[in-house]
Amino acid sequence: MEKKPDAPLKKDNFQEWWQEILGRAEIVDNRYPVKGLTVWHPSGFALRRRVYDLLRSLLDRDHQETLFPLLIPEDQLAREAAHIKGFEKEVYWVTRGGGEDLEVPLALRPTSETAIYPMFQLWVRSHADLPIRIYQIVNVFRHETKHTRPLIRLREITSFKEAHTVHATWEEADAQVQAATQLYREFFDHLGVPYIITRRPDWDKFPGADYSVAFDTMMPDGRTLQIGTIHHLGDHFARTFHIQYEAPGGERKHAHQTCYGISERCIAALLATHGDDRGLQIPPTVAPIQAVVIPITYGENPQVLQAARGFREALERAGVRARLDERNLRPGEKYYHWEFRGVPLRVEIGPKDLQKNQVTLVRRDTLERTTAPLDRGAEEVQRLLREMGDSLRAAARRQMESRLRSCATTAEARRATEGGVAWLTWCGQKDCAEAIETETESALLGLSPLDAEARCVKCGAPGKHRALLGRAY
Amino acid sequence: MEKKPDAPLKKDNFQEWWQEILGRAEIVDNRYPVKGLTVWHPSGFALRRRVYDLLRSLLDRDHQETLFPLLIPEDQLAREAAHIKGFEKEVYWVTRGGGEDLEVPLALRPTSETAIYPMFQLWVRSHADLPIRIYQIVNVFRHETKHTRPLIRLREITSFKEAHTVHATWEEADAQVQAATQLYREFFDHLGVPYIITRRPDWDKFPGADYSVAFDTMMPDGRTLQIGTIHHLGDHFARTFHIQYEAPGGERKHAHQTCYGISERCIAALLATHGDDRGLQIPPTVAPIQAVVIPITYGENPQVLQAARGFREALERAGVRARLDERNLRPGEKYYHWEFRGVPLRVEIGPKDLQKNQVTLVRRDTLERTTAPLDRGAEEVQRLLREMGDSLRAAARRQMESRLRSCATTAEARRATEGGVAWLTWCGQKDCAEAIETETESALLGLSPLDAEARCVKCGAPGKHRALLGRAY
Repeated sequence: MEKKPDAPLKKDNFQEWWQEILGRAEIVDNRYPVKGLTVWHPSGFALRRRVYDLLRSLLDRDHQETLFPLLIPEDQLAREAAHIKGFEKEVYWVTRGGGEDLEVPLALRPTSETAIYPMFQLWVRSHADLPIRIYQIVNVFRHETKHTRPLIRLREITSFKEAHTVHATWEEADAQVQAATQLYREFFDHLGVPYIITRRPDWDKFPGADYSVAFDTMMPDGRTLQIGTIHHLGDHFARTFHIQYEAPGGERKHAHQTCYGISERCIAALLATHGDDRGLQIPPTVAPIQAVVIPITYGENPQVLQAARGFREALERAGVRARLDERNLRPGEKYYHWEFRGVPLRVEIGPKDLQKNQVTLVRRDTLERTTAPLDRGAEEVQRLLREMGDSLRAAARRQMESRLRSCATTAEARRATEGGVAWLTWCGQKDCAEAIETETESALLGLSPLDAEARCVKCGAPGKHRALLGRAY
Repeated sequence: MEKKPDAPLKKDNFQEWWQEILGRAEIVDNRYPVKGLTVWHPSGFALRRRVYDLLRSLLDRDHQETLFPLLIPEDQLAREAAHIKGFEKEVYWVTRGGGEDLEVPLALRPTSETAIYPMFQLWVRSHADLPIRIYQIVNVFRHETKHTRPLIRLREITSFKEAHTVHATWEEADAQVQAATQLYREFFDHLGVPYIITRRPDWDKFPGADYSVAFDTMMPDGRTLQIGTIHHLGDHFARTFHIQYEAPGGERKHAHQTCYGISERCIAALLATHGDDRGLQIPPTVAPIQAVVIPITYGENPQVLQAARGFREALERAGVRARLDERNLRPGEKYYHWEFRGVPLRVEIGPKDLQKNQVTLVRRDTLERTTAPLDRGAEEVQRLLREMGDSLRAAARRQMESRLRSCATTAEARRATEGGVAWLTWCGQKDCAEAIETETESALLGLSPLDAEARCVKCGAPGKHRALLGRAY
């Protein structure tokens, strides 16, 4: 299944790098005969399992996993007016089944509010049933007309984690938005993916929400990628779907809700953030293989092989996910193979190492070579893995911040958004936002509170928000 | 979210028991507004996660998990003639997307051969690439016209585990069928679900297969449920999809393939097998909660509560999945609650237990009460859980075997299949099979080798097979 890479990859040309690397490093295969649909390679899927197991473990603290159907009848999908308006242009419809036209067309879920909330209507009775915090990890579908891109813009999003919560009051739902923000911070910190958190402007919030919070990261070409969103739904859906509870005093009240989602874009972000011209770099926390052990044998050398096997076992006992590469290939080919796939640490054991009772350790990030005594090698591997996780995260954060500019004019912001993003002050008027977007040739992505008094870069009126300007994927 | 059960359940009336218990015990909720689609309750999903984690752990020994798209273009689905003929009457079609008719209708996968094998064509180059053993756990769709039943006959099968393997020779694929059979045995043994393994008659094999092997279990009403199938595909699909490899000698040869699947029917089988009039019984291996600790306090009793908390922690340290029920309910209500949901073991700690420095243990299967010293209680819980797993499995096996009859006439077989299944001798002629099916008012489900010379129950000619007759779900 392996393909020999035939040309060096340059991350400076991110578009090309991205198109090439996912296939070559066996993350996904884009040759499936339908546009916007992707096949996960086994090695890509192994990474995905780690990433989603991590996400599950964070959610499982106070959410429960569940599963709702893929197919949503047309009348259910249309119940919330703003919601259907936001999605109708992207929906796939199942119209035939078993050789006949269906009586009611069924939508492939673009997201699951309208599949889940009719059940919440049945499940919520009393204030004692609240809060409810559930999530599911499912495939969702968007008939995107924009250019599709592997893991970034797909028509089948194969691993959409969507959480849905129900609360008694608006304030409790608001607190849940904070809690979800904190959870997402933790998740992306584990992946070493830096983020900017903003509130989406009103015209870009989730259809049917009171407000939306979003996590954006910056891709290597300076464009932003939305990697997580959190929505306060107020009681809009509760009113539409009759989700009511009996309060302690006996009255019936509408519930308040939130929902928040993360898709496989989280994997796109981690791959794009850490990769380089030599290939991928997978953060140790989620790397399916954290260390690869390579016996350096020219011809047969049973002692070296035995030591390599023993060391792999020692790593496994220490809780390190380790692979031994015994293939009949030159060591250099093996180095290249695992480096390209982003395995954090390479362990070499050759005759000289054996003489000195040591292992040689090579970091994927710095390519630094060190040695460690054989009997304390596993500890050293653990230490290096921790260090690399921290260092990848810090480097990615620095890289993003170096391309984040606070700008005083739209001209300045236009230059900044050519290879990054810009913060500027905005008065809150839609007219000004439109002018700012036109003049900067970018989009007003999100809003953040002002940290000091300032004036709108466009009209000079007192500023209301810091606005994030950028070009989004 | 809890519903109060209002009427006792009698497993003798299996249909009604089944309709009721899944909702009351919060496994699935069947009130979703589309026929044949089901919502997984959080507690049902927790069981499902355990069951599928078990299945994954068995497969991960020598398979790799992967993921292919849901949508299959019409022309791909139709490439293998026998295959499409077998499925076309059940396929759902997506015909519209983004407000327009699609150029090529897209099928919701009924199974994934035609999604996966075009990629195998690209992945398989040389004999060194073989064998390939992959699997995915996905939702598949069948527009069933028969009566749908929760977890048994669904239109969205939400957790279809399908494995697909590629081999150089027919014999190697044949050996894989054996290996898969062994893996499935192990899986169902862990669930305590008894099975009968037969080869499907030619007219009932998988569309496009050389032969099919199936696992059937017996439901409480004596009807059979197919819970796993394994197919030797020969080189039929390889010829259609041009899956070829270069043999060591340099020639290009067609590969040989197998595929095998298990759906959420495995969960239906385990629930139906072990449940009784008191509710569910979940085998300890896959029970999300293996033991529930109930403090017996009439009024406040901080000492009892503290002991109960401490014991739950001790259980957790011992690797037992334990829950403490501190709710403000009478102990009896709590007993009923957890018993109905099938938690294997109840631990009671009351003032008397505390005086004697003991815990009281109550088994869900036998309702037997024993006590154990507080400081060795966790060990005793572990021992009981192991014993209960074995005992559930053995009881289920006995129960099935008591309704398995070897019959010498079709009249005898007709009576046997009223509440079970029958073995009889068959000559291999289609005419005789049809007559046997008519006279026994049941179906010839599968074939097994004869263990001694015998004659066809219908025509008296020398027998070729032992045939399994039954009424299937």
